[in-house]
Amino acid sequence: MSWEKYSRLLFYDEGTGLAVDPSQAAWPEGLLRPDRAETRHAWQEMMNLEKGAIANPSEQRMVGHYWLRAPELAPTAALTAEIRETLSRIDKFAAAVHSGAVRGGRGAPFRRVVVVGIGGSSLGPRFVSRALGTGADKMRLYFVDNTDPDGMDRVWAAVKPELAETLTVVISKSGGTVETRNGMEEARLFYEAAGLDFARHAVRITQRGSKLDAAAADWLEFFPMWDWVGGRTSVFSAVGLLPLTLQGIDAAALLRGAAAVDALTRRPAPAENPALLTALVWQALTGGRGGTQMVILPYKDRLDLLAQYAQQLVMESLGKEKDRDGRVVHQGLAVFGNKGSSDQHSYVQQLLAGPDNFFALLIEVLRDREGESPVVGENSTSGDYLQAFLLGTRRALRARGRNSITVTLPAADAPSVGGLIALLERAVGYYASLVNVNAYDQPAVEMGKKSAGEIIALKNDVLAALNRQPERSFTAAALAEAVGRPEETETVFQLLRRLAANGRVEGIGRGLSGEFRAAGGSL
Amino acid sequence: MSWEKYSRLLFYDEGTGLAVDPSQAAWPEGLLRPDRAETRHAWQEMMNLEKGAIANPSEQRMVGHYWLRAPELAPTAALTAEIRETLSRIDKFAAAVHSGAVRGGRGAPFRRVVVVGIGGSSLGPRFVSRALGTGADKMRLYFVDNTDPDGMDRVWAAVKPELAETLTVVISKSGGTVETRNGMEEARLFYEAAGLDFARHAVRITQRGSKLDAAAADWLEFFPMWDWVGGRTSVFSAVGLLPLTLQGIDAAALLRGAAAVDALTRRPAPAENPALLTALVWQALTGGRGGTQMVILPYKDRLDLLAQYAQQLVMESLGKEKDRDGRVVHQGLAVFGNKGSSDQHSYVQQLLAGPDNFFALLIEVLRDREGESPVVGENSTSGDYLQAFLLGTRRALRARGRNSITVTLPAADAPSVGGLIALLERAVGYYASLVNVNAYDQPAVEMGKKSAGEIIALKNDVLAALNRQPERSFTAAALAEAVGRPEETETVFQLLRRLAANGRVEGIGRGLSGEFRAAGGSL
Repeated sequence: MSWEKYSRLLFYDEGTGLAVDPSQAAWPEGLLRPDRAETRHAWQEMMNLEKGAIANPSEQRMVGHYWLRAPELAPTAALTAEIRETLSRIDKFAAAVHSGAVRGGRGAPFRRVVVVGIGGSSLGPRFVSRALGTGADKMRLYFVDNTDPDGMDRVWAAVKPELAETLTVVISKSGGTVETRNGMEEARLFYEAAGLDFARHAVRITQRGSKLDAAAADWLEFFPMWDWVGGRTSVFSAVGLLPLTLQGIDAAALLRGAAAVDALTRRPAPAENPALLTALVWQALTGGRGGTQMVILPYKDRLDLLAQYAQQLVMESLGKEKDRDGRVVHQGLAVFGNKGSSDQHSYVQQLLAGPDNFFALLIEVLRDREGESPVVGENSTSGDYLQAFLLGTRRALRARGRNSITVTLPAADAPSVGGLIALLERAVGYYASLVNVNAYDQPAVEMGKKSAGEIIALKNDVLAALNRQPERSFTAAALAEAVGRPEETETVFQLLRRLAANGRVEGIGRGLSGEFRAAGGSL
Repeated sequence: MSWEKYSRLLFYDEGTGLAVDPSQAAWPEGLLRPDRAETRHAWQEMMNLEKGAIANPSEQRMVGHYWLRAPELAPTAALTAEIRETLSRIDKFAAAVHSGAVRGGRGAPFRRVVVVGIGGSSLGPRFVSRALGTGADKMRLYFVDNTDPDGMDRVWAAVKPELAETLTVVISKSGGTVETRNGMEEARLFYEAAGLDFARHAVRITQRGSKLDAAAADWLEFFPMWDWVGGRTSVFSAVGLLPLTLQGIDAAALLRGAAAVDALTRRPAPAENPALLTALVWQALTGGRGGTQMVILPYKDRLDLLAQYAQQLVMESLGKEKDRDGRVVHQGLAVFGNKGSSDQHSYVQQLLAGPDNFFALLIEVLRDREGESPVVGENSTSGDYLQAFLLGTRRALRARGRNSITVTLPAADAPSVGGLIALLERAVGYYASLVNVNAYDQPAVEMGKKSAGEIIALKNDVLAALNRQPERSFTAAALAEAVGRPEETETVFQLLRRLAANGRVEGIGRGLSGEFRAAGGSL
């Protein structure tokens, strides 16, 4: 509780109003000295990355998401022009939608937007959409971000009454993401069933020449994804900016806020660089090793998807088996959290009393609300209590020897939200340099996809075998044998169990017996 | 991938359709033997708890949430009658609301419900509301679950056009939870500003004789909270059942599903008891110590708040400094997750490649959707892919030596959701017995609240000091001195910084200077 220490360590920038307080975390004297070799190295790597170095060696590509908010920094004039042109086209298209110059198949102006995308094509836009939405939004956004049939039904049922006024934006970098392909196909069928021409209601955001680009040539519009922007840092590309601009959010203010924080994070001295400061404190708190948790607690309802967004940004960037020298390190930093003070009534019991294997990232927002606040008790407003709970938790954590970092934003508005995203992106980039992992690839993600592809193939073999002998009863074991995969009996059983639950085969001996019968008709 | 092992270990119950598969987790031979002393002890404790033992010694109370779905098991006839009477009153009140027999102040039938509550008074109802809501719901629910002024404004703005048709349910066991008190006060002011009588739009759920009960005597209705039901296990009391019944959810089916799973979890043999089985495997995977993470991944959009619900249930129950013998143990089990396959595009990279300090709880739902599914690719439906991603991730985790448990539900309907909650509640109860912590108290939560109370008091002292000398400029340090708390300069600065951002004082030297000036007029 020392004012001297607090005010000496607090990072504050007058232009953005951003403050980062590392005083409630334990870290060694000298950590923030600008002349430490590893600090200088991390800073130099960031500068090289911004100049167009191949920062993702495993995919041999540049990493340029920072150029999205400062196109003049892109390494070639062509890239600068392409970024600017895309921003301009997003504005024009959104204006045409808002004005009714672009309309749906029946001539109705668009009022709703369904965004079909997953992972980086959903988490950023969803977070910002919720953070900055107001009652005066121009359009309402919905998200199809999975291949759950029932989940898709829910979204389409919600927009069904206004389907003729509904625009669908399909986002897939490669065009090969199966969940998004499925969401697109179901969307197309839903429009067609309503007698609407999907192409006149659809926009694609993808890489030029992708499967999606080719299949969607007659759609209303195309916006690019670039190979130098990773999915988890794509919110300031068309991926985020098109849906958000359609919603009515001030994309220019978002970009301005991000650019302003980026500028702060180019300073070489950690005490003056909020992202480098944050990354160094993270490193001290994790010991530079995997296994620690970061609990993100924004004290502001609007920001309640921040931790979900940051889960991908942090865990996919840092969760790596090997470092850049090929050593097995099992790095990672698990992220969770929803919002304060609500979460204090959920798991803060464990944070204060349980294992000391985490640190908290508390997010304070100074501005309470539009308009005045009433006194609700003890001469205090609801916002007075919200701050008191934040400060009280910060203090209780410290009293129990738990670490926290507090980030303060002037308001939950577009510049501050843009700046917060920039701060986290840069902190993750610096941290990855400090612990020597490649923040820009995700090699393990392919494993689950590959296994899923094998399971789809097995299911098709099983269905084909059933179709060859549609009347017979069978066991999972016999069917696995019939498709030449006796070692896959377990998976065949799991496939049949679900097919039976959906009326595509019949389960006879319910449960564990593994006995089934082909349903009548074609499978 | 051994069918023999899988089918031997799989728990399956034909009545409920519930399956629990522990085969993809590493645990020692003999773990499930029914004659292990600690297993028998945990089982006996659960039986004693159900018979009314004082299972929460730190608060000297019984723990009876299981009676809510089997009132005949309550230890006295009076309790049995009270539970049944409350269920009956909930049904009658909801029917009266739905029929229009109970109406708002202007005579309009109620169509919307705002639930004001936090922690256990919000997480369970929210999870189930989202899991079981349909387009045919009778009423729409909104939740005020924080003391964020802007968050409240968002909810009230959404219902404002139909405020005369909006019922508010205030839930607070003690009536003293500050966030809920604030939510209630702002609600009252909002109704009053619209010329509506809040009392004619409000229902209270609280302990008889609480502050809230006394202050709300003229409200439409009262429903009880009981001291033998903890907040995090209150979803099957009026806390959950009143809002959910108003929404149109089949509460009887929820209770039936929970009761059916409870019955399974009274079996002494772990292999036949899905909760004891689960708890024993958890214990093997955590080593019985704090520090492990449980990643909950339901492959079904409707269940995407399950992990938020389970965070409180698990972490508040298990996150304990001391065991029941007073030894310092720092127990806990961190919980996070949203839904699959979406989360595979977020953090599964870290699960597969990063630190091996977690296990996954995969939730499979067999029934895909209402109605038929189209083929979207590779002769497969969207649901085929959803299952393939689940099975693929389970397989990839195993290939990397990571552990998972898979729970399979026949459908995401009321009986299965009720059963899933029961399974988790009982598993947590058994696990707590096994590791010897009290699952039913939360002593550390008071720390943050106490600190917050001190901060509110300090803020009031600061404002009073300013009111005594309203024209003067001052520094945070001088003001801390003036209120006799020079050691609190840091907090005084933080308080003033926020007050300045909200126009209640003026910040002069922005940022770090700590200089402020009293705003004109009263504070």
